[in-house]
Amino acid sequence: MKNLTLKDIAAALNLSITTVSKALKDYPDVNTNTKERVKAYAKKVNFTPNAHAAFLRTQQSKLIGVVIPRLNHFFFSNVLRGIMKAAEEEDYMVIVLSSDESYELEKKQINRLLQQNVDGILLSIADSTHDTKHIDAIIEQKIPLIFFDKYSKLSNCSSVVINDQKAAFNAVEHLIKQGKKNIAHLRGPLLPQNSIDRFLGYRKALEQYGLEYRKEWVFTCDQISNEEGYAYTQEIIEKHPEIDAIFAVADMPAVGAIKCLNEQKIVIPDQIAVMGFSNWRISNLVTPTLSSVNQPGIKMGEKAFELFYKEQQLIKKGESVVYEKIELDTKLIIRQSS
Amino acid sequence: MKNLTLKDIAAALNLSITTVSKALKDYPDVNTNTKERVKAYAKKVNFTPNAHAAFLRTQQSKLIGVVIPRLNHFFFSNVLRGIMKAAEEEDYMVIVLSSDESYELEKKQINRLLQQNVDGILLSIADSTHDTKHIDAIIEQKIPLIFFDKYSKLSNCSSVVINDQKAAFNAVEHLIKQGKKNIAHLRGPLLPQNSIDRFLGYRKALEQYGLEYRKEWVFTCDQISNEEGYAYTQEIIEKHPEIDAIFAVADMPAVGAIKCLNEQKIVIPDQIAVMGFSNWRISNLVTPTLSSVNQPGIKMGEKAFELFYKEQQLIKKGESVVYEKIELDTKLIIRQSS
Repeated sequence: MKNLTLKDIAAALNLSITTVSKALKDYPDVNTNTKERVKAYAKKVNFTPNAHAAFLRTQQSKLIGVVIPRLNHFFFSNVLRGIMKAAEEEDYMVIVLSSDESYELEKKQINRLLQQNVDGILLSIADSTHDTKHIDAIIEQKIPLIFFDKYSKLSNCSSVVINDQKAAFNAVEHLIKQGKKNIAHLRGPLLPQNSIDRFLGYRKALEQYGLEYRKEWVFTCDQISNEEGYAYTQEIIEKHPEIDAIFAVADMPAVGAIKCLNEQKIVIPDQIAVMGFSNWRISNLVTPTLSSVNQPGIKMGEKAFELFYKEQQLIKKGESVVYEKIELDTKLIIRQSS
Repeated sequence: MKNLTLKDIAAALNLSITTVSKALKDYPDVNTNTKERVKAYAKKVNFTPNAHAAFLRTQQSKLIGVVIPRLNHFFFSNVLRGIMKAAEEEDYMVIVLSSDESYELEKKQINRLLQQNVDGILLSIADSTHDTKHIDAIIEQKIPLIFFDKYSKLSNCSSVVINDQKAAFNAVEHLIKQGKKNIAHLRGPLLPQNSIDRFLGYRKALEQYGLEYRKEWVFTCDQISNEEGYAYTQEIIEKHPEIDAIFAVADMPAVGAIKCLNEQKIVIPDQIAVMGFSNWRISNLVTPTLSSVNQPGIKMGEKAFELFYKEQQLIKKGESVVYEKIELDTKLIIRQSS
């Protein structure tokens, strides 16, 4: 069946288009009888307002695009929940695309979103993204772009992030204050800023407390996986018996470390303490429970949407946009593992 | 800046609209020089093909809507990944909405998707959904609707599900074959079909093996949470010392059970065995590792999209659609807890 338009309904009922539109939206200045007539007719002909016609009228799609590195990732699921919740309040809907941490796929997804005429793009960049031309293309088109969590220092736009360096510093400082002196770091991949910053926070804490930094105590988890955490912990036990604490870039490698230590009957935290990062649900479910750094995922998503919405309103009014960088507070969650 | 159309570009370059369209899509029957001219110009004016103009031409939005009960749920994240992967192959994008297990919100989200002129809707119904008028409205509008995982027996459309009853039967049968005789069930909420079916599978296994069914051994987890699993297990230890196995409707309550048993120094599985359902990542990370039933989430998502796409093609050709119910195989994953 052909989709009817407001115009068709107006013609059929001998009303103005404005009256039909207002009646369907329950505006108080349309009388009740008319509203009921319009609604009954709209129901009869299965009318749903046409988003595309609305777009051609308003130049707004009421859609935003979100590109996340990985979908089945507890933290990003939470960010997405926050985005969806805030979007819903402004009657926006969210197209979700994944980059699978791939630079090529990220470029493609952004291009698809631009073709779909989304009103804005929220992006957490992939670990392998090494240039920002595709990102700058969004900014050039005057479409609001907001980074969340993983951002590029090279692009000029707003972002919602945490201070990874400070958060990591606090986590390692806690281990030091528990009396730990030889702290290993299971770091993330080399490119992404957050993995660099967590590593720098680790190093800074060692320096500040006069502990030696030894690069053979730093292990790179390219997949940020449980298996890498397990394997490196085995290596630590065999080759570096002096190590008395492990600070991991994320909870998954930390959980792998706990599993390995449990199997080797090494007492946590007395012999080796373990600290994760991100505070996934799992950190509370392993034995012993895992100390971690809480990242406010839902709040990050809400703020990212709010920044987009604010910029869009400014652009609509023809006012200039001042880019903001919102840094959300993290919180150290101390549990049994430290 | 006003969005240029294919027509504007064609006029500017003195070419036909078809040639411009083909050049941008790299069709082989346009000569290389022309392609380069068109692409250079399109780049200069920042042209992106307009999805809305395309919709008005083709009556296809190339968007589908997915309504899931909960976003930060490992299983549904996997289903979503499967949907997104399959959608991408057909150049579809996915609007994701959550019902938060609420009937009212589910109704609202479906209405929003219909207004957005999505080409199809993929739905896993909320636990609290008790009538299907809003669902039937989709079917009446001849928009393909596909249920996945949680479905309504009352609506006439295609679905991709697992056989929950059979899967639960197999899980409980395994516990019985391990010598367990007094098996408790942490069941899910009362309404959703999958929680009913898992309960029925549990009961059927007991019957078939001549074990007594006792309703005081069945505990309802309304939130399907870790905390409920923990609390009911404490109750089991205190009031039902004869119980030697626990079959949970999902992994979260099972993980709560393991936590409680560990703390009470009850040996798993010798004293009490534990079986989960869904095979979340966590089942492999707890100590002891948790036996569970693997649900093929990614495959479920892929199949759901494929069903939608097939129906859409049939509708476009004016052919009649025969609804399908695809039942995917589950797999029992035996680990240390049983």
